[in-house]
This record gives sequence, structure tokens and C-alpha cells, in this order.
Amino acid sequence: MSERIRLARSHYIDEITDKLAGSEVKLAGWVRKKMELGGLTFIILRDSTGVIQVVFREDRIGKEKMKEARKLSMESSVIVSGKVKLDKRAPNGLEIEAEDLKVVGYAEEFPIKPGVGKKFLFDNRHLHIRGRKTQAFLRIRSELIKAFEEWYNSHGFTRVEAPTFVGTAVEGGATLFEVDYFGKKAYLTQSSQFYLEAMIFSFDNVYTIQPSFRAEKSRTKRHLTEFWHLEAEMAWADLNSMMDIVENSLKYAVEKVCERAADQLSILKRKFEPPSGRFPRITYDEAIEIAKRKGVRIEWGEDLGAEAERAISLEFDLPVFVTHYPKTAKAFYHKIYQEDPRKVVCADLLAPEGIGEIVGGGQRIDDLNELLTRIKEENLDPESYKWYIDLRRYGTVPHAGFGLGIERTARWISGADSVRDVVPFPRTPTRINP
Amino acid sequence: MSERIRLARSHYIDEITDKLAGSEVKLAGWVRKKMELGGLTFIILRDSTGVIQVVFREDRIGKEKMKEARKLSMESSVIVSGKVKLDKRAPNGLEIEAEDLKVVGYAEEFPIKPGVGKKFLFDNRHLHIRGRKTQAFLRIRSELIKAFEEWYNSHGFTRVEAPTFVGTAVEGGATLFEVDYFGKKAYLTQSSQFYLEAMIFSFDNVYTIQPSFRAEKSRTKRHLTEFWHLEAEMAWADLNSMMDIVENSLKYAVEKVCERAADQLSILKRKFEPPSGRFPRITYDEAIEIAKRKGVRIEWGEDLGAEAERAISLEFDLPVFVTHYPKTAKAFYHKIYQEDPRKVVCADLLAPEGIGEIVGGGQRIDDLNELLTRIKEENLDPESYKWYIDLRRYGTVPHAGFGLGIERTARWISGADSVRDVVPFPRTPTRINP
Repeated sequence: MSERIRLARSHYIDEITDKLAGSEVKLAGWVRKKMELGGLTFIILRDSTGVIQVVFREDRIGKEKMKEARKLSMESSVIVSGKVKLDKRAPNGLEIEAEDLKVVGYAEEFPIKPGVGKKFLFDNRHLHIRGRKTQAFLRIRSELIKAFEEWYNSHGFTRVEAPTFVGTAVEGGATLFEVDYFGKKAYLTQSSQFYLEAMIFSFDNVYTIQPSFRAEKSRTKRHLTEFWHLEAEMAWADLNSMMDIVENSLKYAVEKVCERAADQLSILKRKFEPPSGRFPRITYDEAIEIAKRKGVRIEWGEDLGAEAERAISLEFDLPVFVTHYPKTAKAFYHKIYQEDPRKVVCADLLAPEGIGEIVGGGQRIDDLNELLTRIKEENLDPESYKWYIDLRRYGTVPHAGFGLGIERTARWISGADSVRDVVPFPRTPTRINP
Repeated sequence: MSERIRLARSHYIDEITDKLAGSEVKLAGWVRKKMELGGLTFIILRDSTGVIQVVFREDRIGKEKMKEARKLSMESSVIVSGKVKLDKRAPNGLEIEAEDLKVVGYAEEFPIKPGVGKKFLFDNRHLHIRGRKTQAFLRIRSELIKAFEEWYNSHGFTRVEAPTFVGTAVEGGATLFEVDYFGKKAYLTQSSQFYLEAMIFSFDNVYTIQPSFRAEKSRTKRHLTEFWHLEAEMAWADLNSMMDIVENSLKYAVEKVCERAADQLSILKRKFEPPSGRFPRITYDEAIEIAKRKGVRIEWGEDLGAEAERAISLEFDLPVFVTHYPKTAKAFYHKIYQEDPRKVVCADLLAPEGIGEIVGGGQRIDDLNELLTRIKEENLDPESYKWYIDLRRYGTVPHAGFGLGIERTARWISGADSVRDVVPFPRTPTRINP
């Protein structure tokens, strides 16, 4: 069943190989560049799969078509028929000698030009996504999501979806977006976790990849108001099995991205080796020692901030799990660590190169009384968590889960400057357009 | 790499077969049912993969464990070790003779009981999803989404994501949800279409499966305020290639669901044959003739309502494409039909059995002036559509696309009464909890 759909063309550009030398082909795409040289017109034609040089000669296509070729502007859309020729001077050793040209849409002067600045590029993201690098970033993102889906689908996870409209905060009220829901208040989901926890009682192991929303005002290179979130929950799981699942699925996904998006990584000049070897697992206590040693001001009990995470992640070549945070640093649903009840049974995964947290997860409280106590301690209203509490009344099981930020992970792999680069249309506090 | 994760257990229930007779196994799950018979205690144990009978005898597990077994309530969570035995009296001819029992969580009296009523079930959806039928509906949904992803991934489509926060309406302002976006107004996306249209200039063929939002007050069996939307756009596509893609991908997905969720269909007593043969393609004019003949009041120029769609879809055993609607019945972005400019080049797909519309799509306007004219005709503000209009300025190409409702399609396949049955946590005008 695997067959590319093929509209308007006989071949995609990446299908043009030496073997086709001498053959007639018909290509459809856009003009990336045009050059005039010795009475000939050359264009670099792009489609979704690559670029190829096309040469127009008047003795082949006639005077009229030649005029049209000369008028071609950057980003004009064309259908070109011609012969495949081996030519060492052409960028990839191959060239199309045009025999016919159909100009489908002449482009006005394309506004994306060298040096226009980041704001302009994001204001014109609907055009900027055609760029070679932007396309490469987005392809890497796309392959990452697909590879995660493959891993979870083939490891006994059921793919599920959680609602976007919710009545209750998962991660605390401060970062909730409010929606006018037929005159009542609703919120946008910050995480599918609670819903996935409900679903493990039916499906044992579940995962979802869908958007989460955080009304965080901070404009950083690692925050978006809307991000794609891989989340999974596993019945009967403890912290170690959770970390194994994160590690194995991430290694698989990263490997597949490196394989399938090798061209894109090379367009981005990103030298990236899939992590090999077991991810280090250190405790929070060890982590803050590293951070302090590197001059980060942090007190025991605080969550690791961006600066501490950066310092810690630079200490390792591999992603590193930081486990057993103080309960004061984490949300109420984390299971208390029996050996030291000031701490919880959790793990964040920090990516190397200063990227910091890409995964947050841990074992969830499975005991009814422990959950009620923690809700009280945090001054939360048990009534708001009624259905979540119910899960501990009817056949509770030990379980664990996690959330992984797709954009943060794609940023790490691709070497992007910001999470904004690896999402088609980023959303930040100051941007909802285009 | 394909290996189920296996926590707390040696086997999942669906792995217990005749071949294991005499072997020791360890199972983890929940008690669906308990029976006492001749001094023995039987339970039906369920996990995510199936059910199996377990028998407890005092001479095997001892007095203490026997007491615990007798106390087991519906939905209690347990880990059971024992020997696999062939037993013709057991529901699937196999039984576990328990040698050890660990009660992980005794369940309070489970509130889901026969006859509790639909409202109660949806109020307790977090528990109701454990039910055999609910699980079957959700599994069908899950397999449907996976199969669609397989088809699009293997046919040259790039998987992309569009933003949820938008500044502009795609389907008209009446059904927009408004969000407080840092003191400004934003809306929730009704469709990813415009963003997908932008992305075809980079990727040729793109698809997404993500939530769309419609603030429709109507409480019907085919509406949700939040639904999952498969959308695709294809550069260089016309109406026929669009319909071919819809038809081929849907046939593939339906076939795979019937294969992979055969047990679930049989739990639901749903006799469903994947559609074979080409889907009929009729025009709007023909469609309203059918509707009128069947007594539906409809005038040329109106959109087909639920009643008309029902009447038409009951006329065919297969899904039927209805093409070339009057432009008055469709949104401004549909391409005008040159042979009859009162109409547009579009197609909806109506599913059989009265289900009605599951797909809406068509060829999009690719000519700049045609688009500007249509925007003016509909009294829309061109400024709001500036970036969308831009796509026709810079290398426009003919293109087409569509949106398919995942819940409506899953409802059709599964025979569910309502779209609410085939989504884990449905959202309607009166429901955002749990």
C-alpha cells in the first residue's frame, strides 16, 4: 500500500537519479533561484523532496517559452518537462534540459530576503516555512513524532486522546487559559495526565500526542503558550520502569530521526549522534551539588530553574535523569518517597548542551489517604479533584507516567536556537498570527 | 523492537492459550465479577487485553488468602499467580487455578450498575471507560486513527501540526470559542485548513490529526464542541484526486479496523463489512432530488441539513460523495465551478445508515482575484485573511483538501448511538466534566 501520491508530475525531485539519464520527466514545483548565463536560463527548482537544476535553451523550448522562463521570479510555481542529463557542473550532478514549461503562478517579489530579521520572519511564517532550513526543522519534528508513535504503538500502548476543555488545573492555577464556554468558565488543558491515569484502568498502558497549553508570560527559548505533548501512563509501573520506557522510546525516536532526516540535519549543519549508553540517573541532591559547584544559587527544596538545569546538563554528554525532588518543588500528585518523606518518587530528564528539562514524570500517588493528605497540605479543594480521587477508590494500582515536550526534544536534536523554530506556527504571549 | 512492555505480570490475558496448559503464570488486573460455588471462589479477571476465569481453592492458597479472595469486590485490583488449566466449563475454555493472590486495592462499591442511565454514565466517565463496551468503542477509535496515520505516512504526506490559538475564523464567526489571551482576544481553531494550505508550498502533501473546536449549541448525536479532525491538503490536486485520496485512505483505515478490532466489533455485536466497490459520486442537484423525493423540504441553494443527508445516505450501501454544491451553501474559499458559476468544486462524503456527512472538502480558490472577489461578496474583511491571501501571490498552485471527523467515522464503523460514545471524555455545551 506504500506508494506516494503523484499529482501533476511523473517524478518527485528526489526520484531523479543517474539511472534516469536520457529519460523524459515532468516535474512540478517552485523556483528557488534563477540565473542567466551565456544566453541560457537556469533555475533551481524545488519541491517537497529536494532541488534540481533546470536549463532552458531557446532552440529547445522556442522563443515564447524562453521569454516566460526569463520572466520567472523566485517562488513562481511551474511544471517543467524535459530530459534528465548528467552534468558535473550541476549542483547534484544532474540537470533537467527543459522541453516544455508551464508557468502556473508568477510570484510577486518574495518578501523573505537575507537579513530581514527574526520578527519579520515569524510575521511571515506562512511564507518562511518554505525555506530550506525551516523545512528541515519541521521535517525533523515530523519524523520525531512519527517515530514516537511507532515505538508506543508497538510496545503495547493504546493511543488515546484527552479533552482540551477542562474544569480542573493539573499544574496549578497560575498558568491556566480561560475560555468562555457558553457563558461559563472552562480552561484549556495543561496536561492530559489525569485523564491518562483514568484510562490505564481500561488499557493498562496509554499514550497521547496532543497540544497542551500554558499561560506562561515568560518569553524564553524553551516556552510556548501552546506546545505538543507526548504523555504516557502505565499501570503497575514504578519509577525505574518509567525511566526505562522514556529512555528506550527516546533512543528509538532519536535514532530514527537521524536515519530518516539525515539530509535535514546536514542542511542545518547539525552534527548529532544518537545517544548511546545508558542515561545517567542522579538524585536531586547530587544535582544541586553540581549546580552549586558551578556557581548557581539554589537552595535545597527549590525546583531546578533554567540556570541550574543548564549547569547540570552541561556536565553530561547524555541526557540525564534527575530523581527524587523535594515534595515542595513538585505538584501534589507525586508519590511520597518512603525512605525520605521530604521527597517524592519522580524523575525529570535533562537534555545535554544546556537544553535542560525535556521530560517530567514519576510515580503517582496510588493510596487514597496519601492523596487526600497531599491535597489538604497544598490547600487545594478536594471537590475539584473528585473524579481524580475516585481512581484510588476503585481498584487502585501503582502507576507512573510522564510528559515529554515535543518542541524541546526537537530543538535538542536539530540544534535549533529556540523551540519556536521547530513548530510550524509558534504561539507566544505576543504572537497568535499568522 | 516490537515487544509489549510487561509490568507486574508474566503474561497479558490474551497471551494465555491452550499451549500454556500446565504452566505457571502471573496475571495483573481487575475483578470484573465474583461467584461462590461449592466452596470455591471464582473471579472473572480483566486486563487491557481480555478476560479469564480464576478459581480459588482453600487447599491451594490457604485459609488467609481464601478469606481475601472471598472479600474481593468488583473492580478490585489483584495480582494472581497460578496454573493454566483447560476447562470446558470456563468462558473461553481456559482457567487459572490460583496459587497465590495479592490484593492490591480493594474497591469500594462500584457505582456503575445496570440501569443507571446515560447521564450518570457520562458523569462517571472516568469509571465508565473500564466497561467492556466503552473499551471496545474506544479501541475502535484508536485503531482508526492509527490506520489513517499509516496510510498518510506511507503515501508521501508529511505529518504536520497547526496552531490551536488563532486570530481568524475559518468556518465563520458564529461558532468560535473565545479565549482570554493575556488580556487580548484569541480564538480556538475550527479547522487547520488554512495552515495546511500554507504548508503545501513546503511539503506538497500534508495531513494532521488534532482537535478542532466549534461552539455549536446544538446537542445532537453528531456534534461535539471539541472533536478530532483528520485534515489533509494536497498541492496540484483537483476534486477527483481529492476524492480518490479520501476514498482510498478511508477504505484502508476501515479494513484495518475490521481486522485489528474484530473482537471489539463482536463485543458490540456490530456486523460491519468494509465497503467494497467504488463510492458513488453524485452531484448536489441529484442529491436534493433524492431528498425531495423522500419528502425532505429543501430548496436549491441551501446546504444539506441533517435530515437531507440522512435521506440521501440511506439510499446507498456505500459512502456517497455529493459534489458541486451551490456557492451559497459553502464557505468563501471554495473554487468556483467554471461550467456553472453558481456552484463550487467541492465534495462532501456521506456515510451510510443515515450517519450523514463525515468528510467535507474540495478544491480551494488558487486565483488571487477570484479569492478577493469571494471575500468581498461574503462581506468579510480582507485584512483578517491577509496571510491566507498571500498564498495566492507567491507561486500559487491548484490544490484541494478535506477534513474528516474522527468521531463521526468511528461512530459509523462501530455502530455507536452517538459521537459521544467514541471519544474518551466527550465535550458538549453542557459537559466539561470529568
